[in-house]
Formats: sequence, structure tokens, C-alpha cells
Amino acid sequence: MADLSPPTHTEADCIFCKIVARELPAFVLEEDEHTLAFMDINPGTRGHALVIPRNHSQDLLTVPEADLTATVLAAQRLAGRMKERLGCDGVNLLNCCGADAWQTVFHLHIHVIPRYRDDPDRDPLRLPWIPAPGDMDDIKAVAQELTA
Amino acid sequence: MADLSPPTHTEADCIFCKIVARELPAFVLEEDEHTLAFMDINPGTRGHALVIPRNHSQDLLTVPEADLTATVLAAQRLAGRMKERLGCDGVNLLNCCGADAWQTVFHLHIHVIPRYRDDPDRDPLRLPWIPAPGDMDDIKAVAQELTA
Ligand SMILES: [Zn+2]
Ligand SMILES: [Zn+2]
Repeated sequence: MADLSPPTHTEADCIFCKIVARELPAFVLEEDEHTLAFMDINPGTRGHALVIPRNHSQDLLTVPEADLTATVLAAQRLAGRMKERLGCDGVNLLNCCGADAWQTVFHLHIHVIPRYRDDPDRDPLRLPWIPAPGDMDDIKAVAQELTA
Repeated sequence: MADLSPPTHTEADCIFCKIVARELPAFVLEEDEHTLAFMDINPGTRGHALVIPRNHSQDLLTVPEADLTATVLAAQRLAGRMKERLGCDGVNLLNCCGADAWQTVFHLHIHVIPRYRDDPDRDPLRLPWIPAPGDMDDIKAVAQELTA
């Protein structure tokens, strides 16, 4: 691992800040100047890992751009390594922003989830929605609300 | 919308490249030099949208870094707008890399999914895994496989 300076932003009671500081144990996979990757100990599939910025940010809405882009690039690298070394067939990235979007640790993180074809032991996941055509009038209405 | 030059990489049969070129219709929400945001017409929740790079890349493993970082920053902006304008309580970002990770259109995209508390009409989603402690010996083994 590289010799890294401490993050400039930490939060006292944040378990991910404590993992960055090595005050809590974790299976660390990779570390660079801006990010840390480590195993999720409540895995959805075999190999499920997390990538975080070393600086504390609560979530997607508050993370500085440089920390977000460094984190997604570290997730991309890790996805490639999962494919090479675990022989997974695909990878999902998931970010949960807010308790109502399943966020449980309030230090921004990207889940990197290797996926295995026809292998319910390593991969029991189901897509959280059923892809089906929506109501086009409502989609148009919400598009008008959201257009920049 | 800005006056934009055509993307430098396109693929003839890609429906998202056709949306970028305005050869297929879409509810476009925002466009910048590198990205396009538009509504998902098979929405998981009310307001579900997609962000793509204007240049064609098949997936997370092949997208150039500059297109990936521009896409995640556009997703962050859209998440903020969803919170302001739709009154959602949270947002999920999801990338599906490979058919076995639920990818159905092979032009990299990030799902931006607004979430609504206690509102099954607008938000019927369930987390695709049950968070529970994993087997620590196996997590340690897979960590050794994945360490950079
Ligand atoms: Zn933290
Ligand atoms: Zn394309």
C-alpha cells in the first residue's frame, strides 16, 4: 500500500472514516490517494465490495466532484479485477443516497457487486423492479419537471 | 440545449446512439458536451431516468475514464434536481455491466432512480439482497483474490 497522508475531512463517529484510519478492521483491497476499496461483510454476492473516498462526505448529493470521480474510477478498476480474478459474468455498481434509498452508512460508498450466471449459491440477486412500459403521459409530465 | 458536435464514437445499431443523434425519440432532460440524460420508459419508480455518454462505449469495463466521470457527474446533478423538483426522499444510482448484471442496452448507462418513502404507488422497489453477515472465511479468501 502507498504511504498516504490522512484525509482532510473526517467525522468522529463514522465507521468508514475509522476504516480509512485503520481504527476498525476491514479486508482492504486497494487504496490510492483519494479512495479505499474493501469487502462488504454483508455481501449480496460472492466478492461484493465497497469503494469510498478517503475524505468524509455524507452522500452523492454532498460529495465534491473530485472525490466522486476518483471513487467511480476506483470502482471501474475493481470491476475489471473481479472479472479477471473471480470469473464473474457481470458487475453491478450501486450507490444508495439517503436512508429511503437503502443507505445505512452515511459516508458515500459505491457497491461493486460481481454477478454470476445461473449460480444461486454465489448470486441470489433479483432486479429490484420489473421492467415494463410505464405510463407515457406520466413519464412526459415528470420529464417536464426534471428538464434542466 | 447547447449546440453540440456529433459524438466521435457511434455504433450503427445502438438505440442510445440513435437517441443522441435524435434519430429515435426520447424525453431528454439535459445534455452537455459529453453526456445526455433522458427518461427510462420502463421506470422502476416515478422519475427513473438514464444518463449516458454521448460517445458509444459498450459498458463499464470499456468506457474511457473521461466519459465515465462526465456521466457520473451528470448523474449527480440529476439526482439533485430530482430531490428539489420531485420531492423524492432518496436516489439510487445503478450501473449494469453485462447481460448477467441485467444490462439490456449495450451502451453504458447509469440509472438514476428517485426513491419515495412509504409510497408503493411511486416506489415499489425492494433491495435485491438481504443484508446479513457473510461467511468471514470466504470473505477473507475472496479478498485475497481481489487485492491489488
Ligand atoms: Zn466518514
Ligand atoms: Zn451507442
